[in-house]
Amino acid sequence: MEKLNLISLKDIKINDGFWNRYLNLVPKEVIPYQWAILNDQLQDVETSHSIRNFRIAAGLEEGEFYGAVFQDTDVAKWLETVSYVLMRQKDSVWEERADEVIDLIGKAQWDDGYINTYYTIKEKGKRFTNLREGHELYTAGHLMEAATAYYEATGKDRFLHIMCRFADLICDVFSEENRKDAYPGHQEIELGLVKMYEKTGNRRYLEQARLFLERRGQQPDFFEKEIKSPEYHLIFPELKEYDPRYSQCHLPMRMQKKAEGHAVRATYMYAAMADVAAAYDDVELLKVCETLWRNMVCRKMYLTGSIGSSGILERFTTDYDLPNRGNYSESCASIGLAMFSRRMAQITADAKYMDVAELALYNTILAGISMTGKSFFYVNPLEVWPPSCMRRTSMEHVKPIRQKWFGVACCPPNIARTLASLGDYLIFQKKEDFYVNLYLSTQVHVKTDRGEMLLQMETDFPNSGGVGIRICADAGCSGSLHLRIPNYVDEYTLSVDGQALSCEIEKGYAKLPIGQGTHEIKLVMELPPRIVRSNPRIRENIGRVAVMKGPVVYCMEEQDNGENLPAYYLNPDSLKEEYDPVLLGGTTVIKGSGVKEEIDDWQSDEPYGGHEPVQTEAELMFIPYAYWCNRKPGEMLVWVKELQK
Amino acid sequence: MEKLNLISLKDIKINDGFWNRYLNLVPKEVIPYQWAILNDQLQDVETSHSIRNFRIAAGLEEGEFYGAVFQDTDVAKWLETVSYVLMRQKDSVWEERADEVIDLIGKAQWDDGYINTYYTIKEKGKRFTNLREGHELYTAGHLMEAATAYYEATGKDRFLHIMCRFADLICDVFSEENRKDAYPGHQEIELGLVKMYEKTGNRRYLEQARLFLERRGQQPDFFEKEIKSPEYHLIFPELKEYDPRYSQCHLPMRMQKKAEGHAVRATYMYAAMADVAAAYDDVELLKVCETLWRNMVCRKMYLTGSIGSSGILERFTTDYDLPNRGNYSESCASIGLAMFSRRMAQITADAKYMDVAELALYNTILAGISMTGKSFFYVNPLEVWPPSCMRRTSMEHVKPIRQKWFGVACCPPNIARTLASLGDYLIFQKKEDFYVNLYLSTQVHVKTDRGEMLLQMETDFPNSGGVGIRICADAGCSGSLHLRIPNYVDEYTLSVDGQALSCEIEKGYAKLPIGQGTHEIKLVMELPPRIVRSNPRIRENIGRVAVMKGPVVYCMEEQDNGENLPAYYLNPDSLKEEYDPVLLGGTTVIKGSGVKEEIDDWQSDEPYGGHEPVQTEAELMFIPYAYWCNRKPGEMLVWVKELQK
Repeated sequence: MEKLNLISLKDIKINDGFWNRYLNLVPKEVIPYQWAILNDQLQDVETSHSIRNFRIAAGLEEGEFYGAVFQDTDVAKWLETVSYVLMRQKDSVWEERADEVIDLIGKAQWDDGYINTYYTIKEKGKRFTNLREGHELYTAGHLMEAATAYYEATGKDRFLHIMCRFADLICDVFSEENRKDAYPGHQEIELGLVKMYEKTGNRRYLEQARLFLERRGQQPDFFEKEIKSPEYHLIFPELKEYDPRYSQCHLPMRMQKKAEGHAVRATYMYAAMADVAAAYDDVELLKVCETLWRNMVCRKMYLTGSIGSSGILERFTTDYDLPNRGNYSESCASIGLAMFSRRMAQITADAKYMDVAELALYNTILAGISMTGKSFFYVNPLEVWPPSCMRRTSMEHVKPIRQKWFGVACCPPNIARTLASLGDYLIFQKKEDFYVNLYLSTQVHVKTDRGEMLLQMETDFPNSGGVGIRICADAGCSGSLHLRIPNYVDEYTLSVDGQALSCEIEKGYAKLPIGQGTHEIKLVMELPPRIVRSNPRIRENIGRVAVMKGPVVYCMEEQDNGENLPAYYLNPDSLKEEYDPVLLGGTTVIKGSGVKEEIDDWQSDEPYGGHEPVQTEAELMFIPYAYWCNRKPGEMLVWVKELQK
Repeated sequence: MEKLNLISLKDIKINDGFWNRYLNLVPKEVIPYQWAILNDQLQDVETSHSIRNFRIAAGLEEGEFYGAVFQDTDVAKWLETVSYVLMRQKDSVWEERADEVIDLIGKAQWDDGYINTYYTIKEKGKRFTNLREGHELYTAGHLMEAATAYYEATGKDRFLHIMCRFADLICDVFSEENRKDAYPGHQEIELGLVKMYEKTGNRRYLEQARLFLERRGQQPDFFEKEIKSPEYHLIFPELKEYDPRYSQCHLPMRMQKKAEGHAVRATYMYAAMADVAAAYDDVELLKVCETLWRNMVCRKMYLTGSIGSSGILERFTTDYDLPNRGNYSESCASIGLAMFSRRMAQITADAKYMDVAELALYNTILAGISMTGKSFFYVNPLEVWPPSCMRRTSMEHVKPIRQKWFGVACCPPNIARTLASLGDYLIFQKKEDFYVNLYLSTQVHVKTDRGEMLLQMETDFPNSGGVGIRICADAGCSGSLHLRIPNYVDEYTLSVDGQALSCEIEKGYAKLPIGQGTHEIKLVMELPPRIVRSNPRIRENIGRVAVMKGPVVYCMEEQDNGENLPAYYLNPDSLKEEYDPVLLGGTTVIKGSGVKEEIDDWQSDEPYGGHEPVQTEAELMFIPYAYWCNRKPGEMLVWVKELQK
């Protein structure tokens, strides 16, 4: 199978009204902020100790290891983020710092290639004895992703060489001859190895990724054996009683049909499965990916593109079990969902996968970071009532305001690297054929075998659905432009050089021929605010509606609507949109009318009685879900009750 | 303040259509079943080991301690239950067994009076070093409650003497001279000591109860000090990070205004506070009890008389935070609520407290036990969807079917002792004045200073509200009969010897004079099925109604209504009741009409879309909440959506 290619982020210049605020945050705020945290330079923030761990492991400092076993990944994801930013624009300050960190990683590397500060400082001699919980391969995978990105960004190969030595070690240790049953407790190494293969051409890395995947779920159970070894000791008490579904090793991957277990582990695995399916032309495996994607997206995904509803073990539960309050919906799981979906789109050229990636990007992933770039959500419910988010209760995982950092800090740097690599989701290329997935103002410059092409796109999407595209193709270039018509677009018009065009939709893409020279394409999609209802199998949402515009899910906030948001009923025919140039840095808001159940009649303390409900007319205001809690803390609600006619 | 007295259970013969099935279960099924469990004679049931712990502690067997630190309380509550049953009817078999167990407890007692198998077998030398978690005083309190009950039931004083020796030790160890800052991590000893005082007249026990209560929440914090002692070690990992609210020692008891922390601890404390307030004529303390009761009942209680909504730490959360799915609502907490409420009613002669005790008894406490007497709910949500009650998820504490036993088995024997002592809730006495709280068929025989009185009551409450009462009073007896007019009764008629009577209602009781001779009183309360709504501050219930009849909360079950119960909308004007003599052993069912949102339109997997909801007419059937899951497992729902007019 032929996969659509990504275009190097170096050739994609995004300059977009909607996205700039976040993309510019990354170099201006997020990278410096996270750097300060990695170096423990901030007060009142959870200790990171990540850089010190590397310094201690490198023998440059005395001290104890601090943090989670996977603390190194915060450094890896930071380096990966810096790499993507360097692809967008040169920055000698951060490049220098990155070089220093890479140097430090090199110094912390063992003679045989091994890198991991936890097992270097704290559990020397125990390396690779606890794959179930030790996260060494997970950490390695993130370092590999960073190394390949840094190589692409700078052309410097030191980090890549460091990681090749580690990858070679991993391939030796975990070969079929040496440890043919072993696989990691948290998937990620597979994604790293595939990227290492793509950058180095060393097929051994790809094959090792495939082996790790194929070994999962084989009998006898590897983890069962591992925990019986005298070297094993429990790292995570909550994993004492271990359900193999947790890390998707309950069945061989090819027999899996439902998204199960820890949602981040699952999506990272599925993404790697897609990579391997494409690389090996493995149609059977691709089918498995399709089945898993479909189960996850149709039965276990929130409207906001988030997954994994259980707070305990951050995991999938049963089909259609999607409570809106107290759910987990980890930011990293939505990133995993986008990663997997994008790969499926590249392999199948089917835009439905990008519908989901777009949903995750515009909603949960963006909600994960504040507009200042300095605070983050790990958990993303669709309904929040702050007084109930109490520590030491069943709601303790829900934070009603974004946090400065976390003890387990996977999400903030993951969001940063995802934003910095937004271009990977924007457009795919196959020779002179281009697939435009996201609509944002950008300039993409591509070299093909037959010449150069420049694609310029202008839009104020998602505020409106008008998109202007100018393509300048060298003589000799001819191919096709595939424009994704999102699943939420019912009406659209398309014109080329002023000539209206009606063209075939192929797997969600409108296909236009491209000839040489300069051509102006205009796509106008209707993006009215719309009412969304839920399959009644999702019992929480029966009698409720959500408001969307394009891929953007809207929500009500206490700040605009007063308290007790569940007391509102929305008239579904009343939606009106309005662009507010000031609010939240400029955004389309949606207003509606309906009623609110009043509490006046219940001013007494009486909890239950026979009172008829008293409803008064009310105006409802909605803002993008991604922007909630960027003014002051308060209630938030996505699924609002529908006024019955 | 003068407290209304309980009448000895020996003088109360209950023979009631509604209650017999449960009350008869206790001697026939529950006591033998729990005896078999305490002796580990059943297969497929959680190990108890309770009797063996005592045998080992007594030196009669070799072995290790097994179970929770408070494992002894299962034996104590069993003995208490047997005692209440023996008050109702002689049973030489169980009395003999009880005597053997008491003998065993005596053998396990230390020379200085101490009893506790955990600290005798497993942590010898550590007694009273971990009051925060060790539960020794909690265990002692349950043994004292059992001992006083057994003494009353049989007149045998061996057990009472055993416990006097332990109580004396406790009063010595925890005197103001010796350990003036110490108090238990789980309240219960206070209730036990008060009962010991009532039976022995030894005021020292009462005073010790008061001291334990007064010491809570004083500064410096006792538990903070205790955990710094070299002898201390953590027993419950989940209590490592300790919030003093958990055991209500965040403030001195007199300064507490809100129900906080672990719900069972809280209600046991409040009940003891009421006991102490009455015994010391402490008006200030009684006011505190009233404030706490009001906060708990008006803002933290479910319609079913259950409390403590958080699964994590089994605790109260914030005012009006009462989610219906995934809540905890422990059976024992409802028992504590009933215990506290009954004491408040005894002290204040205010029937509003009995409204709440009755609610807990007819709903959550009864729901806690199956109609076979052999399986139990620990957790009592108001909405259950079995597929979502998955282990190792945020819903893992919710069991969709009653369990045979539990590792921590507080609830089953607690329900048993509560049922066996139902008479304590039925009627209070003050000289020749009687306060009838519950309506059920019974015969109560009382001796007063001036003669004997017999009260016979016949009713098929709660199926109907007709109650016939015959009183035969000796010459010279004259007083008053106070009949509770429950808060859910809007209309009633009252007659004495055929003469209609309109009488004053005093704090919820209709007061009738009683003269000598035989008199027939007829109370007819209207108990139509009714719609109950919720204060809109309880956000979960906005737009929903519940169905009740008298004190009985109704629910929908999948068995009668099909699946997806949240898809129903009930027309609130459509309720009809019907007595079904066969169903669930004979019960009034309530039927209504409305609509159901259909899923036909969504046969595809699509999770979200623009479909208009399709509703079809539907009949809805409701059975008592207490009876749910007595046929086959399935969905259950209390708060059903209300059809908007």
